[in-house]
Amino acid sequence: MMKLKKFQLHTPFAHSCNRVEIYTARFGPTPFSTKANNLKQPESTLNDHRTIAARQKLYTTSILTPGSIFFLPHGTRIYNRLVDFLRAQYQIHGFEEIITPLIFKKDLWEKSGHWQNYEKEIFRVEESRNVEDEHSNATYGLKPMNCPGHCIVYASTERSYKELPLRFADFSPLHRNEASGALSGLTRLRCFHQDDGHIFCSPESIKDEIKNTLTFVKQVYSLLGMNKLKLYLSTRPEEHIGSLDTWNEAENGLREALQESGETWIINEGDGAFYGPKIDVMVADARGKWHQTATIQLDFNLPQRFKLYYRTDAGDNAGSEKLIKQPVMIHRAIFGSLERFMGILIEHLNGHWPFWLSPRHAVILPVNQTDRILTYAKQVQKELSNQEVNESEFLPLNKNTYYVDINAEAQSIGKRLRESRLLNYNYEIVIGEDEVDKEILSVSSRHNHNSRDTRKMTIQQLKKEFIENVKAYR
Amino acid sequence: MMKLKKFQLHTPFAHSCNRVEIYTARFGPTPFSTKANNLKQPESTLNDHRTIAARQKLYTTSILTPGSIFFLPHGTRIYNRLVDFLRAQYQIHGFEEIITPLIFKKDLWEKSGHWQNYEKEIFRVEESRNVEDEHSNATYGLKPMNCPGHCIVYASTERSYKELPLRFADFSPLHRNEASGALSGLTRLRCFHQDDGHIFCSPESIKDEIKNTLTFVKQVYSLLGMNKLKLYLSTRPEEHIGSLDTWNEAENGLREALQESGETWIINEGDGAFYGPKIDVMVADARGKWHQTATIQLDFNLPQRFKLYYRTDAGDNAGSEKLIKQPVMIHRAIFGSLERFMGILIEHLNGHWPFWLSPRHAVILPVNQTDRILTYAKQVQKELSNQEVNESEFLPLNKNTYYVDINAEAQSIGKRLRESRLLNYNYEIVIGEDEVDKEILSVSSRHNHNSRDTRKMTIQQLKKEFIENVKAYR
Repeated sequence: MMKLKKFQLHTPFAHSCNRVEIYTARFGPTPFSTKANNLKQPESTLNDHRTIAARQKLYTTSILTPGSIFFLPHGTRIYNRLVDFLRAQYQIHGFEEIITPLIFKKDLWEKSGHWQNYEKEIFRVEESRNVEDEHSNATYGLKPMNCPGHCIVYASTERSYKELPLRFADFSPLHRNEASGALSGLTRLRCFHQDDGHIFCSPESIKDEIKNTLTFVKQVYSLLGMNKLKLYLSTRPEEHIGSLDTWNEAENGLREALQESGETWIINEGDGAFYGPKIDVMVADARGKWHQTATIQLDFNLPQRFKLYYRTDAGDNAGSEKLIKQPVMIHRAIFGSLERFMGILIEHLNGHWPFWLSPRHAVILPVNQTDRILTYAKQVQKELSNQEVNESEFLPLNKNTYYVDINAEAQSIGKRLRESRLLNYNYEIVIGEDEVDKEILSVSSRHNHNSRDTRKMTIQQLKKEFIENVKAYR
Repeated sequence: MMKLKKFQLHTPFAHSCNRVEIYTARFGPTPFSTKANNLKQPESTLNDHRTIAARQKLYTTSILTPGSIFFLPHGTRIYNRLVDFLRAQYQIHGFEEIITPLIFKKDLWEKSGHWQNYEKEIFRVEESRNVEDEHSNATYGLKPMNCPGHCIVYASTERSYKELPLRFADFSPLHRNEASGALSGLTRLRCFHQDDGHIFCSPESIKDEIKNTLTFVKQVYSLLGMNKLKLYLSTRPEEHIGSLDTWNEAENGLREALQESGETWIINEGDGAFYGPKIDVMVADARGKWHQTATIQLDFNLPQRFKLYYRTDAGDNAGSEKLIKQPVMIHRAIFGSLERFMGILIEHLNGHWPFWLSPRHAVILPVNQTDRILTYAKQVQKELSNQEVNESEFLPLNKNTYYVDINAEAQSIGKRLRESRLLNYNYEIVIGEDEVDKEILSVSSRHNHNSRDTRKMTIQQLKKEFIENVKAYR
């Protein structure tokens, strides 16, 4: 646990994606005395995200790159949907997405302090030994985090108070050299993506930014049916940088934001990083298991190391600027590692993706393979998937399309229904002679508590339901 | 030029993003005798993509990572839009997106043949010298291309003829160690992204796949106003793998597809790679400058090296399968390197992004800073940007939103209009007392040949125009 302790105390690695161990270590094996958490879990691995993901064909791995995920088509659909969902919300939360490089010379990691402290976790990138060029012998680090790159973007131009808070988001792949024995499923990887964000703001804006971030976190988790949160505030440790005033202002901001969030929160006095206080968010999944996911970490250090400044308001009501001041940097992630969060979600949902996140919306099961029935099945697929192109020959941008398959294998309906349920389609559509005659569908869908109902619907009625599901994030 | 020659002849590096030099070398300095191409270009750098991109704040770079791009918010908007556009079309073209790892052990690159031939171009990734773990001393290569990763995905499960053609798309970042002296703007980089795709199909499907790919290429370029294409077919060289029958079938497929495309095409006899024939696509930009962008490369080699198979149809009409057969692999990219293509587009469009691709849709210019006018300006911004959230508090997925800024700086309208034009907003909206009184807008927009007109419109009329622009890819 020493390594994790170090992670937590001394570095922005602290907003790591794999931190639940810290809590287990600190609070003992049952950190939170919820009933659900004390229930004995069945030994079965049926609910393990790896089992469900294999059944749904979400990803694969290879010994040629341990700790990296190959997202298969259906896993990529979920991954992309999570990113698209955040991108949509970023527009109303004032985040601007940027795309930053993956390799940086050692100098950068020395400047940020990562090389000195986390060399072991950083993959070294070297030019081939045979290259004889003036740029030879450069050693690079494959980025374990986006912060230094975002500092470069901040510093790429002069900044004014009018631009602040400046909120950058980034979905770049990150690499950390975790020990091979620690690698597991989607939860502990060497290559992963964060829903990373950095807010550069004036010290006075800290409270508002934290408050907005907490609201954002709560809304997102609530949408996913995770309504139990625990928040931890870690405050000024003995060894720290930055003035007492800065710390006090920052900690008061965090405290007020936590208070106003209406959530339970716990203080860990003196447990902050040397470069700033932070809030860790734990969420409970449907089975009462707690996960450390979102982090909000203040940082007085990187703005200093990277000499980041902004021009302040001269206060003459004419928009003049004077002086220069150092912004505070806030590291924040809602999901943390997208891969790990997908793993948590798979277990939380037990593989039953809500329609809007689902990689398999509907399957059509023709009762037999006669031309008449197959023709109707194809027509239904075409209309439901909503991928018909107009005369311009291009699918319009931002068009809602749906994943609709046909399973016309020469197997009984019963067998094909069972298979469809293993793949967790949201809708099963059976088509027989009666459906073709009446131009309707027999639609079965999953409701609360695993009960299913079967309804007779027209194609248009079902399509309308699809549209409404996505619109309402159901 | 030797290096490029080698690239072209012996390896899937051939579908590199930086190949125009090959043509310049082979065909002399004016490879295509179009009038436009022979016109003397002005010495001015005003049209250089680097100048325009700097003015529009699209990207920045750093000496800490030469040859890598930091996409700033407005550059990221364009980049993401290009990807979203392709993703939409992939649905109707039957491509399934996957996300594959970035580092692979040396073994993989040896298996694919890249390590032996292109070691210099591959960045080595090593674990830190201080790691003492059983996984120590592993040498990885930072991927220069996606093909071997896609072969792993293909081989991750048994494949049937029913699944073919299997079309994988991938937008992963790629790294190639280009000499530092060769690096330039967006056109020659060490880190870039391809709109990469690999089609695994039976030899009998080659013609159809090539035909569809050529249609796709033509459609996309035509949408972007690039209607002049030249196609090059490179055929069997003396040294080759694969049977004569396979080559003949493949080359006939390519020839027929080229013939049916209706485009001019030229044959380079014996100039194919040892592992398969290929088609290179050159497009002319608005100034008549030719660029090598799309590539379609057949590959009989990687399926052999990675032992890729599929079960064939037993032909008993019962869907039974028998035997196993090796698929053909087709490497294809429409844009090639997305970074380089953005560079080409910037120059082709001279910075005037069509509305659907634009990072700056409209700017609102209030004539003064009175409350009345500013309030109206903000209301206009809110309604036009289409980012109002409904009661669910989330922005719906796939909602068309628009980038609308307000420039209320204390400067004359003339000065702010000039600034807006330098940033290439699609619409400029001036708001004065008269506009507030009548609840209208004075809208100026760019038409053909740089002429502008000014119209009085309601907010709803303009918003409708926005929606129609995106819908029609204008």
